Amino acid sequence: MRPTLQFWFELASTYSYLSAMRIEAAAAVRGVTVQWRPFLLGPIFAAQGWSTSPFLVYPAKGRYMWRDMERLCADRNLPFVRPDPFPQNGLLAARIALAAGAAGVDMPAFCRTVYQAQFAQGYDISDPSVLATCLHAAGLPAQLLEHATTPEIKQSLRIQNDTAVALGLFGAPSFTVESEIFWGDDRLDQALEWAAATT
Amino acid sequence: MRPTLQFWFELASTYSYLSAMRIEAAAAVRGVTVQWRPFLLGPIFAAQGWSTSPFLVYPAKGRYMWRDMERLCADRNLPFVRPDPFPQNGLLAARIALAAGAAGVDMPAFCRTVYQAQFAQGYDISDPSVLATCLHAAGLPAQLLEHATTPEIKQSLRIQNDTAVALGLFGAPSFTVESEIFWGDDRLDQALEWAAATT
Repeated sequence: MRPTLQFWFELASTYSYLSAMRIEAAAAVRGVTVQWRPFLLGPIFAAQGWSTSPFLVYPAKGRYMWRDMERLCADRNLPFVRPDPFPQNGLLAARIALAAGAAGVDMPAFCRTVYQAQFAQGYDISDPSVLATCLHAAGLPAQLLEHATTPEIKQSLRIQNDTAVALGLFGAPSFTVESEIFWGDDRLDQALEWAAATT
Repeated sequence: MRPTLQFWFELASTYSYLSAMRIEAAAAVRGVTVQWRPFLLGPIFAAQGWSTSPFLVYPAKGRYMWRDMERLCADRNLPFVRPDPFPQNGLLAARIALAAGAAGVDMPAFCRTVYQAQFAQGYDISDPSVLATCLHAAGLPAQLLEHATTPEIKQSLRIQNDTAVALGLFGAPSFTVESEIFWGDDRLDQALEWAAATT
């Protein structure tokens, strides 16, 4: 069996953007397949007692995060703008991603266009018209926008989040290989090595 | 002027152990001088509303940290045991480190023996007799133990912490080059490159 890495990401997460833009190339080099698993940080953070992003709850950490992202994106030649507002509401985007997965079309392509719309171009990804443009840019059918709000897809996102909690995830991006957890874009390479060595 | 990196560490911090054991070799390769700046996370965490380590406040994060440390130490051939209790009280150890700095003797050597006593051998670093052994193992004078509790050294640690807060630090290890902050052992190499390029 080909080694597989589960990639857990939130579409409104800055550090998830970093991983989303490089994970496929990094995985291909090691012969690892990536399963993209969108989830929501909101419920995860709420369980930790936070009503919003820890980057707002803890201002020193927030100031640092913006500078850290700026430096990392510059090093990687990735465009970067601060979304306004931050954090954005990634609920509809996550549902569309799951609808794309359920339809067997290219979910990663959609996710990358969402990250680019948000972090390269400064669009608000809670806006359905922005997401419609993202679907179009990714070459995916416009109907996924309606499919995203069906009870099946809503339930599928709830299950996804329950699975994340059951695994012990507490932030994004995270990478899992069976019960082994790796947290943060800084651990992507280690996680891929682990996946490659596991099978 | 030779490029300089400020290394901010807490003697009871797991990830600071990782950096302390490799920073001098990594800095030497790049011609960077390291200034060791011990400080206390307790007051920093208290300002964020935590009465103890975030690894205890947020259990999922705590479980992850132990596993992450275990994997990283295995990769680096560093011994690692979980201190009991955790976190340890690093106050006296930090004062001794500052006393060593004030006396112009080898503070880094003392700090490394403290990290090894705690994370390799499982000793309690709040115990003065353990710290006396660390001083001896580092080849430093036993009198530093008494010097550590003078008003001058106590005040010097308070100033050190105030400086950390003024710089915007919120965790350890951190590395600074003037006002530029790098947080976490994962950023050590980037911080050293920054220091080397700055002078």
